[in-house]
Amino acid sequence: MIRVGIIGATGYAGGELVRLLANHREAEIVWYGSRSYIDKRYSEVYQNMFQIVEDVCRDDNLAQLAEQVDVIFTATPQGFLAGLLTEEILSRVKIVDLSADYRIKDVAVYEKWYGIEHKSPQFIPEAVYGLCEINRGQITGKTRLVANPGCYTTCSILTAYPLVKEGLIDVDTLIVDAKSGTSGAGRGAKVPNLFCEVNENMKAYGVASHRHTPEIEEQLGYAGNCQVTISFTPHLVPMNRGILVTEYASLKRKADGALPSNEEIRAVYEKYYAAEKFVRVLEKGVCPETKWVEGSNYVDINFVIDGRTGRIIMMGALDNLVKGAAGQAVQNMNLLFGLKESEGLELVPCFP
Amino acid sequence: MIRVGIIGATGYAGGELVRLLANHREAEIVWYGSRSYIDKRYSEVYQNMFQIVEDVCRDDNLAQLAEQVDVIFTATPQGFLAGLLTEEILSRVKIVDLSADYRIKDVAVYEKWYGIEHKSPQFIPEAVYGLCEINRGQITGKTRLVANPGCYTTCSILTAYPLVKEGLIDVDTLIVDAKSGTSGAGRGAKVPNLFCEVNENMKAYGVASHRHTPEIEEQLGYAGNCQVTISFTPHLVPMNRGILVTEYASLKRKADGALPSNEEIRAVYEKYYAAEKFVRVLEKGVCPETKWVEGSNYVDINFVIDGRTGRIIMMGALDNLVKGAAGQAVQNMNLLFGLKESEGLELVPCFP
Amino acid sequence: MIRVGIIGATGYAGGELVRLLANHREAEIVWYGSRSYIDKRYSEVYQNMFQIVEDVCRDDNLAQLAEQVDVIFTATPQGFLAGLLTEEILSRVKIVDLSADYRIKDVAVYEKWYGIEHKSPQFIPEAVYGLCEINRGQITGKTRLVANPGCYTTCSILTAYPLVKEGLIDVDTLIVDAKSGTSGAGRGAKVPNLFCEVNENMKAYGVASHRHTPEIEEQLGYAGNCQVTISFTPHLVPMNRGILVTEYASLKRKADGALPSNEEIRAVYEKYYAAEKFVRVLEKGVCPETKWVEGSNYVDINFVIDGRTGRIIMMGALDNLVKGAAGQAVQNMNLLFGLKESEGLELVPCFP
Amino acid sequence: MIRVGIIGATGYAGGELVRLLANHREAEIVWYGSRSYIDKRYSEVYQNMFQIVEDVCRDDNLAQLAEQVDVIFTATPQGFLAGLLTEEILSRVKIVDLSADYRIKDVAVYEKWYGIEHKSPQFIPEAVYGLCEINRGQITGKTRLVANPGCYTTCSILTAYPLVKEGLIDVDTLIVDAKSGTSGAGRGAKVPNLFCEVNENMKAYGVASHRHTPEIEEQLGYAGNCQVTISFTPHLVPMNRGILVTEYASLKRKADGALPSNEEIRAVYEKYYAAEKFVRVLEKGVCPETKWVEGSNYVDINFVIDGRTGRIIMMGALDNLVKGAAGQAVQNMNLLFGLKESEGLELVPCFP
Repeated sequence: MIRVGIIGATGYAGGELVRLLANHREAEIVWYGSRSYIDKRYSEVYQNMFQIVEDVCRDDNLAQLAEQVDVIFTATPQGFLAGLLTEEILSRVKIVDLSADYRIKDVAVYEKWYGIEHKSPQFIPEAVYGLCEINRGQITGKTRLVANPGCYTTCSILTAYPLVKEGLIDVDTLIVDAKSGTSGAGRGAKVPNLFCEVNENMKAYGVASHRHTPEIEEQLGYAGNCQVTISFTPHLVPMNRGILVTEYASLKRKADGALPSNEEIRAVYEKYYAAEKFVRVLEKGVCPETKWVEGSNYVDINFVIDGRTGRIIMMGALDNLVKGAAGQAVQNMNLLFGLKESEGLELVPCFP
Repeated sequence: MIRVGIIGATGYAGGELVRLLANHREAEIVWYGSRSYIDKRYSEVYQNMFQIVEDVCRDDNLAQLAEQVDVIFTATPQGFLAGLLTEEILSRVKIVDLSADYRIKDVAVYEKWYGIEHKSPQFIPEAVYGLCEINRGQITGKTRLVANPGCYTTCSILTAYPLVKEGLIDVDTLIVDAKSGTSGAGRGAKVPNLFCEVNENMKAYGVASHRHTPEIEEQLGYAGNCQVTISFTPHLVPMNRGILVTEYASLKRKADGALPSNEEIRAVYEKYYAAEKFVRVLEKGVCPETKWVEGSNYVDINFVIDGRTGRIIMMGALDNLVKGAAGQAVQNMNLLFGLKESEGLELVPCFP
Repeated sequence: MIRVGIIGATGYAGGELVRLLANHREAEIVWYGSRSYIDKRYSEVYQNMFQIVEDVCRDDNLAQLAEQVDVIFTATPQGFLAGLLTEEILSRVKIVDLSADYRIKDVAVYEKWYGIEHKSPQFIPEAVYGLCEINRGQITGKTRLVANPGCYTTCSILTAYPLVKEGLIDVDTLIVDAKSGTSGAGRGAKVPNLFCEVNENMKAYGVASHRHTPEIEEQLGYAGNCQVTISFTPHLVPMNRGILVTEYASLKRKADGALPSNEEIRAVYEKYYAAEKFVRVLEKGVCPETKWVEGSNYVDINFVIDGRTGRIIMMGALDNLVKGAAGQAVQNMNLLFGLKESEGLELVPCFP
Repeated sequence: MIRVGIIGATGYAGGELVRLLANHREAEIVWYGSRSYIDKRYSEVYQNMFQIVEDVCRDDNLAQLAEQVDVIFTATPQGFLAGLLTEEILSRVKIVDLSADYRIKDVAVYEKWYGIEHKSPQFIPEAVYGLCEINRGQITGKTRLVANPGCYTTCSILTAYPLVKEGLIDVDTLIVDAKSGTSGAGRGAKVPNLFCEVNENMKAYGVASHRHTPEIEEQLGYAGNCQVTISFTPHLVPMNRGILVTEYASLKRKADGALPSNEEIRAVYEKYYAAEKFVRVLEKGVCPETKWVEGSNYVDINFVIDGRTGRIIMMGALDNLVKGAAGQAVQNMNLLFGLKESEGLELVPCFP
C-alpha cells in the first residue's frame, strides 16, 4: 500500500485527490495537510467525506511528512514548494506538485510570468512535466519530482499536440480560446468568486497575460521543435467543473495546394490517441461537451476543417479538477510506482 | 456474472443505471431497451458513455428479454410494466420496477392518484417495496418483483421513519416540504423543463396532489401502525440533481410534559441507522446539503428540536438519481442475488 | 427633487436602490456612502452603472449626511443605525432603515434574537414598520423613521396576512418554509457563498433560530390580535434573486364543520389585495414562480386548500432585492413624500 | 401613439418586445400574434405579464394586421416573412423583421446558408440593415422595411467595426469566438435545450457553419470596403441571457514597424462610439462582463493589445434579447418614427 501525504488537502484540487484516492486500491492517504484547518476533522471541512474519512487536518510540514509517506501531492500556491524543497526531502519521497513551480524549464520565464523569485531552481532540470500521454516514458520509478500540468494547459496542449507534432498547422497562427468553470479559481473567499457575481455572467480575464500561456508554448514548442507563441484567452463561465478550449490555426496546404482532408487529420489524431484510454477523439460532427467528461479523467477532442478560411478549429473538453488536476496527479502517481495507469481513475462521467 | 436488461435505458434514471453498473463487478448489461432510439448506439444518445458502452439500443420487449437475462430494470412510465407483466415472465426473471406500478398495495389508491387502470393487480401482493433499509429482510433470492421507491418518497420516509416507528411524533401534524433538482422531471422535451424556464426560478407544483403522497403515507403508516395523512409539497429548483426534504411534526411530550431531548431523539435515529452504510445521521448543528451526497447512494439526515413550538424539524438529502432511483435499484439487485449490498455503490460524493 | 443619501450603497441592497432610483423622476442620489470603497468611483464597484453614475463613494457619515439630504436609506449591518441615531439627526432628515434595528417593538426580543445590545431604543416607538400594503396609513409626511421590512418577512407576512387578519386559520399551526436566492446573503466574501459552494446545492439554515422569525410573529400577531408563534425555516437555493415561501396552516372549520371553499378564501385575499398594485393574487391553479416577479416590485400569491388534511397551503413569491428590500424602501420613500406610491417602481418583471 | 403589432409574440424575443414596449411612452401593442396560443390570454403564456397585459393571443395574419397598426415586428422563423410580404402590405405599414430574411443582400448567400428558397427577393434591396449605430442615417420616416440584426452579429460587428472601418486590422486574420446564453436558442421544446442538458455544460456548435457568419462578413465588408471571410464559432453557455464575443485579429503595423498604441486604438473606438449612448467603451483593463449589461440595451466593448503576437483581442458583451433582438428593434422603431432613439430603452442593467 502506497502511503500518501497531501499538502493543501482542503482546496478544491486537494479535495478531489481525496475523493479519487478513496477508491484507489493501492494507495492510502495518511496525512491531510491544511494550514487553514489544523486539528479540524477533514469531514467537517468537506461534509461529503463524513463517515468516509475520519482523519484530522494537520499542519503542512514537508520535511516531517517526507519521512512518513511514499509520495507527497502538493496542491499549494505558486512558490510554496519551491521555497521548501531540499535534496534531503527528494531523496526520501516522491513529489507530485500540482503548482506551477517546476513546470517551466526556463526559470526566467517562470519568474517573469509569476512575478516571484524561484527559490530552488536547481531541481527544475530533473522535474518531469507530467502530461502522461506525452511524457509517459519519463515518469518511472526513478523519477523523484513530477510537475503536474495546469488545467488549461492539459486541455490546450492535448487538443493541438498531434497536429503540431506532425507539422500540419502553422503554429504562428495558433489561438486558444478557453472557457472554464469556477472551481479552477479555488476556494479562496473573494468577492469576484461569489455565487451572485459568477452566476448568470461570463467574462474573459487575464487576456494576453495568463500564466498558463508560457506553459502551453513550451510544451507545444517541444512537440513542434520550434518556437511557439500563442494567443491564449481564458474565460470564466457559471458552472462548477469543466474546461472547454476552442483552438484556431491555419492548416498548412499540401504540395498540390489542397488542404488536408478530414480523414487525413483524423488519422493523425488516431496515431497519437487511438491507444490512449483517457483521450477520446470523437466521431465526425460531434463537438465536445464538458458535461460528457464530468467527474472523469477523460479528455474529449474533435476538430472541424473550415475550407473557407483554410483554418482548422480544434476543440477539447475535460474536467479541470480531474484530468486537469487531481486525476492526472493520480495517473502520474500510478506511473511513478509502476501501477496500472488507470488505477483509481476508472471513473464513468456523470450525466446529467 | 448477472445478466441485466434495462427497459427505458435512455431516460435519466436508465442512464444512471448504466453509469452505476459500468463499475459493478458482478453484473453486466446485455440489453439497452429504448423505444425512442432503436438501433442507435447507446453512446450516441449519451456521449459520456463513448468508448465505454458499445451496444445499440433495442426495442423494449419484456417477454423476449425475460429469456435472456437474470434481472430486468424497468425505468418506464407508469402503467407500462403493469400492462405487460405475466406469470410466465415473472417465473423466468427478477424485475426491479422503477415506476410506481407496484408500490402501492391498495389498487384503488393507485388508480385514484395515477388516474389509470392497473392492468395486473394480481402481482401487487407479492411485490416488495424496495426501501432496503426498512424492508431488507423481504428482498431475497425468492423475491421476484421489487417496487423500487420513488425519489421523493425514499427521502421523505427515511427522514421521518425512526420517529414514526417509535411513536415520538404526532403523525397527524406531519408536513413534508420537498425540493428537487430538475432531473426528476425526466428527459422529455417540454417547455416547462427548458433551461430558460427553470434556471433562476423556483416554484411549488402538484400542491396537495402529488402522486408520491400516498406512497409516503402507506409506508409511514406501516411504520407507525396507524393511518397517516400528510401534507406533501414538492418544489422545482434550478439544479440537476438532489432532493432536500424539510419535515415538520409536533413532538409528543413525555409523561412529565417535557419534550424529548436532542440526545433522546438522536438515540432513536442511531438505533435504526447507526449500522446503515447509506444513511448518515449528521452531527448536531449540521444541516444536510444536497451537494454533500451528489453522485452517491447516501442519504444525509438531521433534525432540530424547536422548543418554542414543540415541533421537530427533520431534514433529509439524497441524490434523486442514485439513492432516489438507480442506486437504490442496484442495492435491491444486490439483495436479490445475495451480493454485498453496497457492491457498485461505493461512490464517494463529488464536490464541488 | 428629493435629495437622497444611501449609507451602504455598495452592498446588493444598496446597489438595487441605485438601480431603482436611476429611473425615479422625483429623486436623485447625492451621496453614495460606502466604507469599503471610499473615494472609488461607484461605477468601478458596479460596472453596470458605468456612464450612468459618475459619483464616487464616500465615507459613511450619518450626521453630516443629515444636513445635505431629504432622506437617508441605511442598507447597513444590524446595530449600525441604532448606534448612531440621534434626535438631532431625526429632526433634520427622514430615514428608511433597511436593517432590523427598528423593526421589532420589544427591545428584549430584538436583543435576544440579534445577540446585540440596542443602543437607541428610545426611537423604537416612533418607527413605523414599512410594510406599505398593511401600514400605509402610518407612513406620511410626519413620519421620521421607517423600519423597512426584511425580505423573508415581507413575503411571509403578505402571503398569510388576510387569513390571519380574518381569523380563518389556526395560527398555532402556521409553518413557513422559505427558499431564497443567494443575493440575500449579501456581498461579503465568505466561503459558503462562493459560486462552487452554492451552485448545484440546497440546504436549510438557521433552523428554528432565524432572526426573521420574531418579525413575522410580531406583525402577524398585530393582524390576528393574538400571540403568534411559528416555525420558520429558510433555505438557500442556487439562484441570484427570488424568495418563495410555502406556508402551511390548519383552516378553521365553519359552523357546519365544513372547510371554507376556495371561493371564500379567494374573496378574503381579494378584500385586502384587489386594489393593491404590487400584490397579485394569481388565478386558481397557478403556483407563484420567482421568475415571474424578477426585477419587479410584485409579490405573487396563491393558495391550495387540501381537504384531506384540512390545511391550506399558501404560496408567495417576490424578488428579495426589490419588494424584499430596495423596492419597498422606495415605496416607503414615495409615501413619506406624498408621491405616487409606484413612482420608480413600474418595473415589468424580466423573463427569462 | 404608435400602434404596434407583434407576430411571434410568445417566443423569447417576442416576450422581450412586450416587456420593453410596456414602458414605452409613445407606442402601444394592439396585436399579440402567436400561432401556438391563439385565443389564450397572453399573461397565461407569460405569467410575468399578469395584470400588466390583458390581451389574448391572435392568429398571425400579416395582411389583416397591416391595416390596423403602424408598425409590425416579426419575431418569426426564417422564411416566414419572406413568404408573406407583398407590396400592398409594405405600402401600409412599416416592418421591423427580427428574422434573417432581409439581412443579407446577396440572395444566393442567404439561400446557401439558410437552406431555403427566398420567396420575395424583390424587397431585399430596399431593406435597411438595422444596426442603428452604423446605419442610423438610413432608418427614417421613409424606410418601410428594417432587417433587425442577429444577436451574435450585433455584438460581433460592433466590437470590430471601428478597427475594420479604419483599416487597422488585417481582416483576413479575424476570428470571432462567441459565447451565448440559452435564450438565444428560443422557446422550442427540444431535448438539447432542457435544463439538465444545458446546466453545468458548455459546447461549441455550428462550427464553421453558423448562419450568422455571412451576415457578419457582409457588414464588416461594407465597413472595410473589402471582402471579409472570418472564422466564427458560437458556444452555448449555461445562463439565460448574454452574449460575449472574443475577437482576434493581427494589427497592421505602422510605417515604423511598431504596433499602434493602446491610446491610438482607443481613439479610434472613441471616434465612432463616444457619442453613442448604447455603446460603452470600457476603461483600460476592464473586461466586459455580460452581467453588467443584463436587461439593458448596452453593448460593452474593450480590447487588449498583445505585443507578443502582434494581435489585438477585442471583447464585446450584450444582452441577446435586448440589444441583440428586441431592444434594437425598438431602437429601430424609434428611428422610423422620429422619436427619441432611446425612448423605452433607458434600462439600467440589473445586478446581480
